[in-house]
Amino acid sequence: MASNYKQPEHKLTMIPGPIEFSDAVLGAMATPSQAHTSPEFVKTFQNVLQNLRKVFKSTDPEAQPYVVAGSGTLGWDVAGANLLNKNDKVLVLLTGFFSDSFAEALQVYEAQVDVVTAPVGDVVPLDQIELHLKKEKYTAITITHVDTSTAVVSDVGKIAALVKKVSPETLIIVDGVCSIGVENIEFDKWGIDFALTASQKALGAPAGLSVFYASSRAVQKALNKEKPAAFFASMKKWTPIMKAYEGGGAAYFATPAIQNVTALKVSIDEILGQGLDARYATHDEASTKFKNEIEALGMKLVPNKEVAAHGLTAAYFPEGVNGPDFLGKLATKGFTVAGGIHKALVGKYFRVGHMGYSVYEGHVDRLLAAIKETLSELK
Amino acid sequence: MASNYKQPEHKLTMIPGPIEFSDAVLGAMATPSQAHTSPEFVKTFQNVLQNLRKVFKSTDPEAQPYVVAGSGTLGWDVAGANLLNKNDKVLVLLTGFFSDSFAEALQVYEAQVDVVTAPVGDVVPLDQIELHLKKEKYTAITITHVDTSTAVVSDVGKIAALVKKVSPETLIIVDGVCSIGVENIEFDKWGIDFALTASQKALGAPAGLSVFYASSRAVQKALNKEKPAAFFASMKKWTPIMKAYEGGGAAYFATPAIQNVTALKVSIDEILGQGLDARYATHDEASTKFKNEIEALGMKLVPNKEVAAHGLTAAYFPEGVNGPDFLGKLATKGFTVAGGIHKALVGKYFRVGHMGYSVYEGHVDRLLAAIKETLSELK
Repeated sequence: MASNYKQPEHKLTMIPGPIEFSDAVLGAMATPSQAHTSPEFVKTFQNVLQNLRKVFKSTDPEAQPYVVAGSGTLGWDVAGANLLNKNDKVLVLLTGFFSDSFAEALQVYEAQVDVVTAPVGDVVPLDQIELHLKKEKYTAITITHVDTSTAVVSDVGKIAALVKKVSPETLIIVDGVCSIGVENIEFDKWGIDFALTASQKALGAPAGLSVFYASSRAVQKALNKEKPAAFFASMKKWTPIMKAYEGGGAAYFATPAIQNVTALKVSIDEILGQGLDARYATHDEASTKFKNEIEALGMKLVPNKEVAAHGLTAAYFPEGVNGPDFLGKLATKGFTVAGGIHKALVGKYFRVGHMGYSVYEGHVDRLLAAIKETLSELK
Repeated sequence: MASNYKQPEHKLTMIPGPIEFSDAVLGAMATPSQAHTSPEFVKTFQNVLQNLRKVFKSTDPEAQPYVVAGSGTLGWDVAGANLLNKNDKVLVLLTGFFSDSFAEALQVYEAQVDVVTAPVGDVVPLDQIELHLKKEKYTAITITHVDTSTAVVSDVGKIAALVKKVSPETLIIVDGVCSIGVENIEFDKWGIDFALTASQKALGAPAGLSVFYASSRAVQKALNKEKPAAFFASMKKWTPIMKAYEGGGAAYFATPAIQNVTALKVSIDEILGQGLDARYATHDEASTKFKNEIEALGMKLVPNKEVAAHGLTAAYFPEGVNGPDFLGKLATKGFTVAGGIHKALVGKYFRVGHMGYSVYEGHVDRLLAAIKETLSELK
C-alpha cells in the first residue's frame, strides 16, 4: 500500500527485539483501514498463515499456525491454559530470566513445575534432562530455544530426540522468541508440539503480535479440553478462526491487528525471499564476526561460545568501564543497546541484537565502529 | 516521525471498527523502531496514559489507565481474571451479541452469571435491574455501553446511580467498545470501576491495543487478589508497569506494541484537540442526520430511536432488497459496510460505523450518496 515509504534517519535499535524494520515493513504498518473480514485482509492473513508453515518447516496439515494480537508473553498463557490441566507436571529447562518467567506463567495455570537450572551462560546438559524424564512422568517439557537474557541457544533438536526416546507422551513446548527466523527450527521433523514467538523479534515486524504454532496432537488436546482456563488465549476459540482465514474466508472471535499482520506478511515474504537456510547462514556469519570483534576488543562473552545464540550477543563491560557510561555514549552515537537482565549478572553486561534488517543494512558494522570509539573515549 | 504521510485513495471502511484513520495516525504507525525502554517511547507512552485520564474524565490519582497489546476481548479476561473470584455472582445486562460473549468470558473465570435480557434493539429497563440487585448480592454488574450488534446505547450514568443506591459494593464494569471517544462517559462521577475498549473503535487508531481503566477500588481488589487467574492479563503485573511509564520511566513485563501506542497518542491528541464534549456533539449531529436520511430512504432502524448509539447505525435492508447484493454494490462503489451479527436478526440488517475520521472527512455523506445509488439500481 505504502510501498515507496522511506524511513527517516534515526537512532538504531539494536537490542534483542524490537529490532530494526525494513522500509517496506514499516510502510505496510501505514496501510489504510481495512475491515477484518474484507477480501483484501483475508488475502493478507491467508498468506501469512500459509507462509508461517514454511517458517516453521512444517508440512503436517493437521498442525496449525496462529497469529493473535498480543506479545510473546501471551504465548505462555496459551500453552498454560490449553495444553495443561491442573496439577500436570512440567519440566522447565531454565537458562535465564525468560525460562524463569515462563515457569511462573505455567504456575498461574496450576501446573506443577520442576526446574532444571543451567549454569549461567550455558545450557542444561542432556544427561540431566534424561535423569528427570526417567524419574517422573511429565505432561510437558519447556525449552527456551534462545534465552534472551544470557544469549545462549539450546539444542532443541537433540533435546526433542531425547524426549521422544525416553518419554514420547511428553509435549515439547519451545519458547522461540529470538530464535524463530534466525535459528534453525524443524517443527515437524523434531516433533515439537508447541512453539511461540513475537513479531518484533527475529520475524522482523513491529511488536504487537503473538505468533504460535501447534502440532496435531497439541491442537487435539486443546480442542478436547473441556474448559480452557482463558478466553482470549483459548485455542478452542482461535483454531476455527485461523482455519477460516487460511482457507480464504473470514471468521470472527476478536479483531486481528490488521496493520501489524500486513507488516508481518511483508517481513515473512522478505525472509522466505532469501530462503531460510541462507538466512541462517547470513546470521551465523554476522554473529561470528561480531563476537570475534567484541572479544578482540577485550570483552568477555557471557555465554559459553559453543552455545552462543546467533541473533544476539551478550558481553561483559570491559574492566574499568562503567556500564551506564558505555550505554550512554553509544546512545549519543545513535545506537540503542540493551543492558543485562539476568538476576545474577545485572549491571555487569550488555546485550546487542543483530537480527534481520540490521544484519543486511550494515548496522552491525556501524555499531562496532561506535563501540570502538566509545571504548577509546572511556579508557 | 512520518508526519507528512498521505494515505492513498482506498475503499472506505465504515463498519463499527476498525474505522478509518487520519493520515497522521497512519503515519505514526510507520515510526521507525524504538526500544520499549527508550526515552523516546517512554515519553510517548507517558503522554498516552496521562491523556487517557482525560478521555475517561477521571481525575482520581488512584485510578489507573492501562494499554496492553491485544484486542477489546482481552479486556473481558482482565475483568474476569482480576476482579472476580470463583463463584462470584455477576449481573450481566444483555443487549446483544457482545454482552453475550462478555458473559461467556466471565464464566471461563468461573463467575456465576445472571443475565437480564433486553428486547432486541432496546436496553434493559431500570426497574428490572433494580429488582435483580435487591434480590441478590452481586460482586459485579456488567453494562455493554454500546452493543455493536444492535447499535443501542445504555444509560450508564443512570444504571450506575441505581447500583450506587441499591448495592454500592457491586463493582460497575462497562464494556466501552464503540462508546469511549464518541459517547459521553464520566468514569469518576458515575463511579465506574472498570471500563474497557479497543484502539480501532471510537479511539481512532489501528487495531492491536486493549485499553482499560480501573477505579481505585478495582485496582486495590486486583492487587490484593492472592492468585490472578491469568498471567498476560494480570493487573498485578501490569499496574507497576503502567505507573512507571506514566511517571516517565520504563519497566518491563511484556513488550508493548510501540508503533500502535505511538499511533494511539496521535489519535488521542486529535480527540482532545477538538475537546470531548465538542466531539460528542459532532457525532450526535452526524448520527442524527445519517439516521434521518436512512429512514427517509424507507429503511427501518434496528434500535428504538431513543436508545440509538451515536457512533454507528443498524438498519434493516429495505423490503425486496437482497442483503448480499446491497453490501456487494456498496463495496464496488468503494465502501465496506458490515452485515448484522445479532443471532435473532442475522441476514436481515446492516451496520454502518460513523466514528472519528469518517465523520470529519465527509465519508458519511459520500456513503449516503452511494446508498441512494445502490437502492435505485436494485429496485
